[in-house]
Amino acid sequence: MTSNDNDHRGLLPAGLADLLPPDAAREARAIDIAIERFAAFGYERVKPPLVEFEESLLGGPGAALAPQTFRLMDPVSQRMMGVRPDMTVQVARIAVTRLKHEPRPLRLSYGGNVIRVRGGALKPERQFAQVGTELIGVDSAEADAEAVLLAVDALRAIGVAELSVDLNLPTLVAAVGAGLKLPADTLRRVRRALDRKDEGGIAKALGDAKRAIDVFTGLLRAAGPAERGIAGLTSLKLPAAAAAEAARLSEVVKLIHAADEDLPLTLDPVEYRGLEYQTGVSFSVFALRGRHELARGGRYSAGYPEDGVSEPATGFTLYMDAVLQASEAPAARPRLFLPPGTPWRDAGPWQTKGYAVVRGVIAADDPRAEAKRLLCSHALIDKEAVPL
Amino acid sequence: MTSNDNDHRGLLPAGLADLLPPDAAREARAIDIAIERFAAFGYERVKPPLVEFEESLLGGPGAALAPQTFRLMDPVSQRMMGVRPDMTVQVARIAVTRLKHEPRPLRLSYGGNVIRVRGGALKPERQFAQVGTELIGVDSAEADAEAVLLAVDALRAIGVAELSVDLNLPTLVAAVGAGLKLPADTLRRVRRALDRKDEGGIAKALGDAKRAIDVFTGLLRAAGPAERGIAGLTSLKLPAAAAAEAARLSEVVKLIHAADEDLPLTLDPVEYRGLEYQTGVSFSVFALRGRHELARGGRYSAGYPEDGVSEPATGFTLYMDAVLQASEAPAARPRLFLPPGTPWRDAGPWQTKGYAVVRGVIAADDPRAEAKRLLCSHALIDKEAVPL
Repeated sequence: MTSNDNDHRGLLPAGLADLLPPDAAREARAIDIAIERFAAFGYERVKPPLVEFEESLLGGPGAALAPQTFRLMDPVSQRMMGVRPDMTVQVARIAVTRLKHEPRPLRLSYGGNVIRVRGGALKPERQFAQVGTELIGVDSAEADAEAVLLAVDALRAIGVAELSVDLNLPTLVAAVGAGLKLPADTLRRVRRALDRKDEGGIAKALGDAKRAIDVFTGLLRAAGPAERGIAGLTSLKLPAAAAAEAARLSEVVKLIHAADEDLPLTLDPVEYRGLEYQTGVSFSVFALRGRHELARGGRYSAGYPEDGVSEPATGFTLYMDAVLQASEAPAARPRLFLPPGTPWRDAGPWQTKGYAVVRGVIAADDPRAEAKRLLCSHALIDKEAVPL
Repeated sequence: MTSNDNDHRGLLPAGLADLLPPDAAREARAIDIAIERFAAFGYERVKPPLVEFEESLLGGPGAALAPQTFRLMDPVSQRMMGVRPDMTVQVARIAVTRLKHEPRPLRLSYGGNVIRVRGGALKPERQFAQVGTELIGVDSAEADAEAVLLAVDALRAIGVAELSVDLNLPTLVAAVGAGLKLPADTLRRVRRALDRKDEGGIAKALGDAKRAIDVFTGLLRAAGPAERGIAGLTSLKLPAAAAAEAARLSEVVKLIHAADEDLPLTLDPVEYRGLEYQTGVSFSVFALRGRHELARGGRYSAGYPEDGVSEPATGFTLYMDAVLQASEAPAARPRLFLPPGTPWRDAGPWQTKGYAVVRGVIAADDPRAEAKRLLCSHALIDKEAVPL
């Protein structure tokens, strides 16, 4: 056997990886902790299949992920199926079809893996573990705040310290544009200036429309700590729909800070990238150290609006790769070598004490040496766990 | 909104299903319990990707599943990938490539979902949750026994009562045929007679070859309780390779009964169906009630024998759908409704007491009525959890 003979078998497609010990166990444990916190708040787990018909997978908010979805022909039905690129759309499908008669709000959680056709420029991964919740059937500030607080609760339970939350209103700029009756082309130029945080560009795009200039410049300046930003937003002469969005956000900030006064909250009211299917208060959770994005979520329409079937919803997904990078690995459990011939039932008491036992299944003259060879921390010698 | 408008969206491909509450949580919990028992015996979790190159997925023992594998073109490498139809082959790949320098035996566990192109005649499912272990790099009776005992241990921990184990030697008939130098065609006729438990057919296939008739008839009669069957096997004049297989099985039976004298063990030494890639002692675990097959496993060659890269291995997979059918559902936790306006931090103490809390996020005049509407068992009234 030459190593070249099998190394080519070990090659994985770009963006797909094996999780090895101890990372696979750590990821699974973190997912369990999150799902358990969700269950403690009444969110019940659902498990949609890895593959389903394109039509249901890519309807409603799923349409945005169509280019990222691997397709398979189903030999049974002769119809096209997709390998799920996201689970939110599946959970929403379950809510508006099989669970449509359950009382609202409906609280569901999920955890599983998704696959995308291509990795991103910054993140080459094409498989992700997604864990999250959906709160379906109500449109209230209490529900928006619950999503944020629950994401933070789960991340802390997993062991991520020093979190901060960035709040967004991804439909606000469009609402202002519509309220001020700005031409589409003008609004596009304004959007580009906002993306660059360019106040001069806003003025240039809008010419002599002073109210519009004041409003968009005000939105830009509202970015930063949440309470200050809310004060800035509410001082602006916003059109009615935009003012309602700002009022909702203000209420959500109050509810979050009433529950957790020390949680750092920032506002970026003009951010919309990566939030294309969000319809209201949205958020990202970061770890202060490293500024990893750990979770993202917000308000959206669950279901298939193109069929006239949709419900207000909010929810979020934890990004497990970032979550694990931002949390401490737990200590490995001690490993106790049981020399060959040790009765099977002798394992139990040591397992109860927290040891992983490693049974000798081949002859070994020197239990200490064999235990070391097997990377054990202890060996059972004269009925004692002897540290090595 | 008419119900027809969304019902077509809820349709899933044949053999693919949503797990709804409480089944999804039950399955996840059972998988956790199994993986934890495996960890207590030193099996460390790995997590291969859902999709990988055909070449590695369908090499070695994976070849048998090629017709059951969905293929995808990888736009990055322009090579064909497969959606995994099984995880054993992936775990073996990890063992012989990325973990080839780890000490042997290597103990690995896994839990995840697999997809197949078509469902079976008896089982229409095309997605399965697989959970199991692999013990790689040794060929010993102790290792064979460990696989059986660990499968039984995990199933009991999940809550399946009254287990029995059926042991098989799927290569025994071929070993006898080779040792007795039977022509391939004769052996095929013998195999058909064995499948039908037809002693007359054995004699007819073999004509006047008295030793062969005695041996194959003896194998057939060895089916049944393990110790009696072993006595039958060892009384036969088996060719050397077949006798070695029988001797190994005898040792495995002794080790299993030394660890667990009350475990019902049966023997079916001529069974091979569904065990095509097994190379030695194999087994199925059943629940006495219902005779569901809960787990299957046994000895095989891990790696890519066609590349000259393989290691002796044994392992098993739990079939989670059958496992859940054979175990009792745990009691649902009580659900406590917290009326709107209840402070967020009031949830914690109730969660610690074992309640799932359901926060009111819309106005509700009558907390009792609202709690009932939300299927809660309790409502928080005057700081008490009042049963409904």
